[in-house]
Amino acid sequence: MDTPQVDVVVVGAGLAGLAAARRLVEAGASVAVVEARERVGGRTHTLVHEGATIDVGGQWIGPGQPRMLALARELGVATFPTPLGGKQVLDLAGTLSSYAGTIPKVGIAHLLQLQLALTLIERIRKGVPPEAPWDAPGAAALDGQTLLGWVRRHLPSSVVRQLLTPTVRTVFGADPGELSMLHFAHYVASAGGFMPLVDTEGGFQELRLVDGAQAFSEGLADRVGRERVHLGRPVRGVSQDDDGVTVHTDDGDLRGGHAIVAMPLGLLDRLRWAPALPPLRDQLHQRCPMGATVKVFCAYARPFWRDAGLSGEAVCTEGPISVVFDNTAPGGPPMLLAFVTGTPARDWASRPQAARLQAVLDLLARYFGPEAATPVWTHEQDWVTDPWAGGCPITLFPPGTLSVFGPVLREPVGRVHWAGTETATRCTGFMEGAVTSGERAADEVIAARR
Amino acid sequence: MDTPQVDVVVVGAGLAGLAAARRLVEAGASVAVVEARERVGGRTHTLVHEGATIDVGGQWIGPGQPRMLALARELGVATFPTPLGGKQVLDLAGTLSSYAGTIPKVGIAHLLQLQLALTLIERIRKGVPPEAPWDAPGAAALDGQTLLGWVRRHLPSSVVRQLLTPTVRTVFGADPGELSMLHFAHYVASAGGFMPLVDTEGGFQELRLVDGAQAFSEGLADRVGRERVHLGRPVRGVSQDDDGVTVHTDDGDLRGGHAIVAMPLGLLDRLRWAPALPPLRDQLHQRCPMGATVKVFCAYARPFWRDAGLSGEAVCTEGPISVVFDNTAPGGPPMLLAFVTGTPARDWASRPQAARLQAVLDLLARYFGPEAATPVWTHEQDWVTDPWAGGCPITLFPPGTLSVFGPVLREPVGRVHWAGTETATRCTGFMEGAVTSGERAADEVIAARR
Repeated sequence: MDTPQVDVVVVGAGLAGLAAARRLVEAGASVAVVEARERVGGRTHTLVHEGATIDVGGQWIGPGQPRMLALARELGVATFPTPLGGKQVLDLAGTLSSYAGTIPKVGIAHLLQLQLALTLIERIRKGVPPEAPWDAPGAAALDGQTLLGWVRRHLPSSVVRQLLTPTVRTVFGADPGELSMLHFAHYVASAGGFMPLVDTEGGFQELRLVDGAQAFSEGLADRVGRERVHLGRPVRGVSQDDDGVTVHTDDGDLRGGHAIVAMPLGLLDRLRWAPALPPLRDQLHQRCPMGATVKVFCAYARPFWRDAGLSGEAVCTEGPISVVFDNTAPGGPPMLLAFVTGTPARDWASRPQAARLQAVLDLLARYFGPEAATPVWTHEQDWVTDPWAGGCPITLFPPGTLSVFGPVLREPVGRVHWAGTETATRCTGFMEGAVTSGERAADEVIAARR
Repeated sequence: MDTPQVDVVVVGAGLAGLAAARRLVEAGASVAVVEARERVGGRTHTLVHEGATIDVGGQWIGPGQPRMLALARELGVATFPTPLGGKQVLDLAGTLSSYAGTIPKVGIAHLLQLQLALTLIERIRKGVPPEAPWDAPGAAALDGQTLLGWVRRHLPSSVVRQLLTPTVRTVFGADPGELSMLHFAHYVASAGGFMPLVDTEGGFQELRLVDGAQAFSEGLADRVGRERVHLGRPVRGVSQDDDGVTVHTDDGDLRGGHAIVAMPLGLLDRLRWAPALPPLRDQLHQRCPMGATVKVFCAYARPFWRDAGLSGEAVCTEGPISVVFDNTAPGGPPMLLAFVTGTPARDWASRPQAARLQAVLDLLARYFGPEAATPVWTHEQDWVTDPWAGGCPITLFPPGTLSVFGPVLREPVGRVHWAGTETATRCTGFMEGAVTSGERAADEVIAARR
């Protein structure tokens, strides 16, 4: 059987791969996209559960993400504002309080340190070039410590440390003790600051998608041409020679003049590469795990939390929940969404299902009242056990990784180019980063083919 | 073709796998050992180069390693003492000095801090149970910081920090900014203290092997039976069901009632596991890279360094060399052995060969005189580019790994049991740890089969 031959084989039909393929098709190149899953979208995945549309993966966009806003307009992906209004609940090591706005109500000494933390982070991130964090002043020193170690040195307040945990867990799927300070600073730098990361209004959680975030990938796949997107074909290896790249799948090979690999960085280790990858690239793949995220959706008969003047948002410092959001969509059932992230998520699947759901509902009832204990339905999405993601939301660069191995992150290996939100220079880790990384990789290939 | 069926399939013919197989054979079990390489020995590998026997992998044993000393006696593996005598050279950021003993000559303030460092490390390691470092008091806090971060907090002396780098690079193949403090403390705890790790006389570098360290594996393979050791058969996947385990290789499957997997932890990610591994085990494989070590052997017409009263040992704080040893064996040519480890080793292979060798020879000439620049021959062993090791000497547990994922390190998954020096409770990272881990895994299987 002849191996199908195209100009470019794209591995991965998430946002990065599809954005790359779409740009290549528009440039007149022939493409084939191969995807392990039976669907497009990668870490964005929209389900209709009990008649309600829910995003079990990425779900927000916002200002500061111009490419996504433009893509929404172009593809006709309708947005709606994330519900706002009411007070947030803070569970500080078991003590409940409520507050308005983004900054929790804590003692003045802690507030001052929280402000100091934000000032220090702002100063560091301004020194970190989003396109080359390894060139930041003191990059090796930043990369030689964890975020937790850095906080310990600069901020004696234990409350600041406690507040940091749920925030970092939710953003990275990791604990402050796992994160490299350089990776943290780069993430913040590429987002344009810390507050956009955590804010709803004016931040990266401002808008949601009426038909779900997967609509972006569906729209891009339509423009690529569905016949060019091969679902259910896990890639097992990539071989290249002077003339092109052969992509090996369970269901036969594909051959391209070039390839764009748009898979999660942490899973690239699981492919066989021939010839062997250059040493820094190979070691990069050895050392980048995925964060851990579980989303638990709870639908209710009525939005009882609003009666009490609560927004439905809660922050919990001790876990297993890290944050809760009001996840109600127009026309959908009232809904709370609890994030289990970082360490508690890593072995979530090993806990008995009834017990782990009960742990979530017990906390929701503490925060929002007894009605929270009796949802109409619940749905749990565990990304840790997803074999084609390996975790969520993003790839982690442990201490000592970004400063040493970062320089090869986007460097093509022969005819293989790299896409994926972790390779982005702006909004890395977000849909914005995924799309722009795919378009950047496509541009590289278009230039190489000239 | 029928799949060969045995009681136990052992994956990996390094010291751990062969020690396991040997114990199983002695217990009356039928075994098959499958190995990717065309040789036994794993990270121990003995070459005869220009008539001289050299260990391009692990090469030392010493007191505190009773299992290796007993194995040497039993297998008739002859030892000789590592050459001693003469002064060491210290290259402290370009400034040369010499000293006798293990502790370099530095100013009294720095010496006191060095002493303080050793006292603090000794105190911490005594609290770390070698068999369960995750149960240490404050395990999460230790695991939430890098060794560099810890040193920065407790030891303001920059000289201490400078001296730490070559030591840690040589022992771990990693920089202090990459290492988890808990991993570091566990390594020290399992060795019985910090000084045995770095000492020659009375320490883990006291003895070498006349016929090379690979002789242990050759002796064990003889006792297992060579016909049971299948070389050149990379394992690509492991499937199990209620009745047994199927090990998939390029050259057909093998089936066992149980399997013992004795591969480097960092490479287990590259196998396909069916059913999927439990979440903590899968994530453990995602996050454990190998250290980076390159050994450069330089043979000379005469041991000129001894004329100058030098031992041939040197410590270099800025790299690319981290340490140098006199590697002369009885009857062999005078020889210096330079270690390039940690960050400089990670992309060593990407530097032009002549330039990188010259960089080593230039430093040797600075330390030991101009004769060092003209060796009779040189031989370079780069473990980073070895596809079946992925690096050397050991697997790293980045911050946040050992405390969360450590508990599953030795936990069998169904009928699959785990061996390898990284799973050892004593002398983890050493041959002693490899052999005892293999024997422990064999005992588990023997007990399970009863």
